[in-house]
Amino acid sequence: MYVNDKIKNTYRVPQPEGRGAYIRLDQNENPDGLPKWLFDAAMEKVTPEYLAIYPEETAPTAKYAEMLGLQRENVTFTAGSTVGMGYIIKVFGEPGKDILCVTPSFAMYEVYAKMIGMNVKQLRYEKDFSYKVENTLNAIQESTGIVVLVNPNMPVGNVYAKEDIVRIIEKARENDAAVIIDEAYYYFYDETSVDLIKKYDNVFVLRTFSKMLSMPSLRLGVVMSSAENIRCINNYKPHYTVNSIALLFAEAIVENHERLLSELKAQYTEGKEYVTGALAENGYETLPSEGCYICIKPKHKTSREVTDLLEENGILILCGKDGLTGWLRLTIAHKKYMEIFMDALLRLDR
Amino acid sequence: MYVNDKIKNTYRVPQPEGRGAYIRLDQNENPDGLPKWLFDAAMEKVTPEYLAIYPEETAPTAKYAEMLGLQRENVTFTAGSTVGMGYIIKVFGEPGKDILCVTPSFAMYEVYAKMIGMNVKQLRYEKDFSYKVENTLNAIQESTGIVVLVNPNMPVGNVYAKEDIVRIIEKARENDAAVIIDEAYYYFYDETSVDLIKKYDNVFVLRTFSKMLSMPSLRLGVVMSSAENIRCINNYKPHYTVNSIALLFAEAIVENHERLLSELKAQYTEGKEYVTGALAENGYETLPSEGCYICIKPKHKTSREVTDLLEENGILILCGKDGLTGWLRLTIAHKKYMEIFMDALLRLDR
Repeated sequence: MYVNDKIKNTYRVPQPEGRGAYIRLDQNENPDGLPKWLFDAAMEKVTPEYLAIYPEETAPTAKYAEMLGLQRENVTFTAGSTVGMGYIIKVFGEPGKDILCVTPSFAMYEVYAKMIGMNVKQLRYEKDFSYKVENTLNAIQESTGIVVLVNPNMPVGNVYAKEDIVRIIEKARENDAAVIIDEAYYYFYDETSVDLIKKYDNVFVLRTFSKMLSMPSLRLGVVMSSAENIRCINNYKPHYTVNSIALLFAEAIVENHERLLSELKAQYTEGKEYVTGALAENGYETLPSEGCYICIKPKHKTSREVTDLLEENGILILCGKDGLTGWLRLTIAHKKYMEIFMDALLRLDR
Repeated sequence: MYVNDKIKNTYRVPQPEGRGAYIRLDQNENPDGLPKWLFDAAMEKVTPEYLAIYPEETAPTAKYAEMLGLQRENVTFTAGSTVGMGYIIKVFGEPGKDILCVTPSFAMYEVYAKMIGMNVKQLRYEKDFSYKVENTLNAIQESTGIVVLVNPNMPVGNVYAKEDIVRIIEKARENDAAVIIDEAYYYFYDETSVDLIKKYDNVFVLRTFSKMLSMPSLRLGVVMSSAENIRCINNYKPHYTVNSIALLFAEAIVENHERLLSELKAQYTEGKEYVTGALAENGYETLPSEGCYICIKPKHKTSREVTDLLEENGILILCGKDGLTGWLRLTIAHKKYMEIFMDALLRLDR
């Protein structure tokens, strides 16, 4: 029986499970989730009968688009933004062409690209973990199919200036290449490229409801692009892939956007100020980050030892790998969790 | 910019929306949804914190597999079974080969197959809407890549005898072809082919939680096959595509399976006995069906007129098309809805 070889031989990293009893500072979730008042506003509409109807995306998509100053035709929801990036690569990725990825970053771009037979070109950070945008500009050529900009990138929290993004888009367009701008960590960093989809037809912007918007369990991502590009993605997307409860939360979040974001951002900012201050005070080397995560160099023990000791103490963080071997990656969350983390770090890393 | 031509030019049927205020007898949903006690058992675990954790599929998948006498390695959950059938076709469908589909049936098999460049071979019903299994057997040849058996098929509710399914699987295997057995309407019809995945490595069985299990809004489907086939599908499947609330309901349904199914089946059987009896008494021609739907020939007005009049009266059913032009398709549900339907039909079709 035929099996697509590229898929058969793909290596996929298993996702961690059994995390519910831990303090979760490893996957860039908000450990507390949405405020109770927002949760209640969405959940009060959930009944057995409501769950018995196939999902209806049009109204929530239109409301979300309007909030961002877009038309409904520029937006499509996906079952998490990881699914959305897959759609873009499968519809607009040309087998044999190159996809440019700054590495380390979110791994699924490379996984999807290899599955359809694109060549992954990894662009590297400097030794001090700064990133030179010329690396990307110089790499764009006739063989380029897709350029990926995760902005802020992850796990190093560097960002791309808007004028550099425009230069990349224009050079990509001269080479008939698409540009994906992944704004998963928007809200932690307030610059956006959403407006560029109105000017350039080779741009895709991704957003997610899993990070600042605090509902990773419900699987909701957003792809934004020209109406014609979104039409092509909707041709590919199976109908009814976003569940109705995610759509209810999306509507509640749009309707209560200002209040919700002011609460979530205040919580985050307090946590970030506390933890970056405490790390500096205690002489920890960190990488500057515009995302809800920060890379930290342990002072005494190895990153593996610190990560394991923290886990024994009920706290999950990530141990850096690839270009970040030797570093820890911490999710920045509410101050109460940052205090627990700092207390444990100072106790264990000695 | 490159766009995959097959996707760009795919025609997709828009899904109906704005259905909440109607009596919904058009999409084979259970209009009432799950019983309140089951709903409450699942929902009591939903909190803001629970929604703040990425979904964990392993435990619910293992419980579901155990219920069916399978290993966890034989099962993968998908965001609705429509997504699952897409995975099978994308991983195991060979471009240039044939996919055999009995038509009319669920349209997405053909859509997915065309997108990857397979040739769709449509196999037809007889004039009396019986289906000769020899049509399928004779069509299987070296150029065959995938054989699709929707059992019971939809919208005509015919079924395939187990021995015929085995003959099809064996002939497919001789030709290196896969067989998809879509059991979306299992529970309405109690014969299953799940056991055949243990014996044959070219068989995929699909199930859904959208029909008898009454939660189409939550998007949960199941693909079952050999451990190696499921490994390949999991290589393709983006992580975290099934949402956590669907997984909670899956666990609650497995834990309460006997009680739940006895309630749902009793409700359905009562509705089916009532409506098939009432249609026969009133001289309506119908097609025999083992699914939760029945094709009905109007007596006086056209099927379009009857469908439109019912909609004006707050009742949604489907108007037959393609091979079923002139027929109505009614979802069979709880007797109270069947009474409302019969009353309206007798009043409007005159």
